[in-house]
Amino acid sequence: MRLAILGLGLIGGSIARALAVREPGAWHVTAWSRTPDGPRRAVEEGVVADAVSDATAAIAGADLVVLAASPAANLALVERLGPALAAAGGLLTDVTSVQAPIAARAAAVPGLRFVGGHPMSGRERRGYAAADAALFVDRPWVVLPGPRASGGDVDLVRRLARACGAHPLELEPGIHDRAVAAISHVPLLAAVALVEAAVSAPDWPVARSLAAQGWRDATRLARGDAELGAGILAMNASAIAEALRRYRHELERWQVRLDALVAAGDPAAAVPGLAADLARTAAHIEPAT
Amino acid sequence: MRLAILGLGLIGGSIARALAVREPGAWHVTAWSRTPDGPRRAVEEGVVADAVSDATAAIAGADLVVLAASPAANLALVERLGPALAAAGGLLTDVTSVQAPIAARAAAVPGLRFVGGHPMSGRERRGYAAADAALFVDRPWVVLPGPRASGGDVDLVRRLARACGAHPLELEPGIHDRAVAAISHVPLLAAVALVEAAVSAPDWPVARSLAAQGWRDATRLARGDAELGAGILAMNASAIAEALRRYRHELERWQVRLDALVAAGDPAAAVPGLAADLARTAAHIEPAT
Repeated sequence: MRLAILGLGLIGGSIARALAVREPGAWHVTAWSRTPDGPRRAVEEGVVADAVSDATAAIAGADLVVLAASPAANLALVERLGPALAAAGGLLTDVTSVQAPIAARAAAVPGLRFVGGHPMSGRERRGYAAADAALFVDRPWVVLPGPRASGGDVDLVRRLARACGAHPLELEPGIHDRAVAAISHVPLLAAVALVEAAVSAPDWPVARSLAAQGWRDATRLARGDAELGAGILAMNASAIAEALRRYRHELERWQVRLDALVAAGDPAAAVPGLAADLARTAAHIEPAT
Repeated sequence: MRLAILGLGLIGGSIARALAVREPGAWHVTAWSRTPDGPRRAVEEGVVADAVSDATAAIAGADLVVLAASPAANLALVERLGPALAAAGGLLTDVTSVQAPIAARAAAVPGLRFVGGHPMSGRERRGYAAADAALFVDRPWVVLPGPRASGGDVDLVRRLARACGAHPLELEPGIHDRAVAAISHVPLLAAVALVEAAVSAPDWPVARSLAAQGWRDATRLARGDAELGAGILAMNASAIAEALRRYRHELERWQVRLDALVAAGDPAAAVPGLAADLARTAAHIEPAT
């Protein structure tokens, strides 16, 4: 199977590594990246067969093309390469965190077959150096068939996901984008706003010196790839705005509760009720792994 | 040095383990806990010298008493044991996450010498089984001298912190409580509200099936000890309410920005500005460890 990967950073590189390790010889991979260091190193390591300096050259003869650049760059690549890929009869997939915009862009290219993809494997490091053959193992890989995708096209993207050790899961772009707004994009804003609020407080220098594991976990998403985060916020703005309203509503309820607690002035009396509510909330989510 | 530890869970147990490993023979430790399993096991392991079934018996003859139960239980113990400890001339310290209430309670016991303490070493697991001799290594340990504490009293609590591998850092209770509200208590509410908002969304079953590492990190604090969390929220309600207002203000700014982005309808144009702002926010905080 001839595969082209456009963008060989954390995700694209991890796909290449996973295929090389898990199905050696089964995938002939050609890689292109904005910066040539990753593809060059991947060739040296035997992870990909060819590194090309031009994205158009990468897709020539490819059965499947994976867009693995930033969200904004992936959109631009659909526009730039879509017509040639449609003419050559290749199938397009991607690994973009927001799916409705790229699905619409692909559907607008006459004859282009597109099956969206989103492996649910985050990590805050970036670049090919951080790529990991085990990144997708036992993780969901969302598969989102476009209107012109055949059953065979969907099967091919499912096969890619399984080859990386992931579990394919079929969804519609709108549902996907609303779900990731709740579990991934609002948490990004929550982390960013925690930092903004703490930094603006008068006690920040003292607070910073005390910061422990809890602070690092709570703000880890705010340390991620800024370009990826910006693309996500811009492209999923509508679903995130909706989910952010629900989040702010829950925080407002806590504000009312805390203000009432301060006014009542009997902290000990509030402990059992608060503990029961915190335990109930924790029960909604899986244990940490 | 004769030490009594009241409450032998994660923190109390980790202090006992740290002293046994790092300064064997230097501290004679007597332990009491609400449930006797931890102290019994600690005696079997040679981590503490004595396990007693009554808190009053634990403090007899102790040079230093460490309150390491839940925040509410520590307050109750000051009231219950403070007069006897004052009469016996022992020094009291603690490991409570909120310091103003316990400082006030200790100051109200005639003759009681108190130096508050708060090792900044969180972990979501609880109980003696999770105790770790290395929990405090190279972490700050806040030391908060009460009005009747002598220089020697403060030195003794600093010595305990250093014996556990921590770096003592002197603060005033009000400043401590405001700082931990920003870096620890509002992040707890932020995580709890993320869960509440996600669970209440119509797409929660789909979203839950996609949840990855980012979601686990962002909600880890919501999986912690509910009794500890409730004690913290109740006892530091005033500082948390204030910090929560700042946090909600930052989220409101993001809401306005996202709503404007949706209205403008040109996502690609927003990416560079968003990326610059995310990078600036990330630069405020230390790299993840």
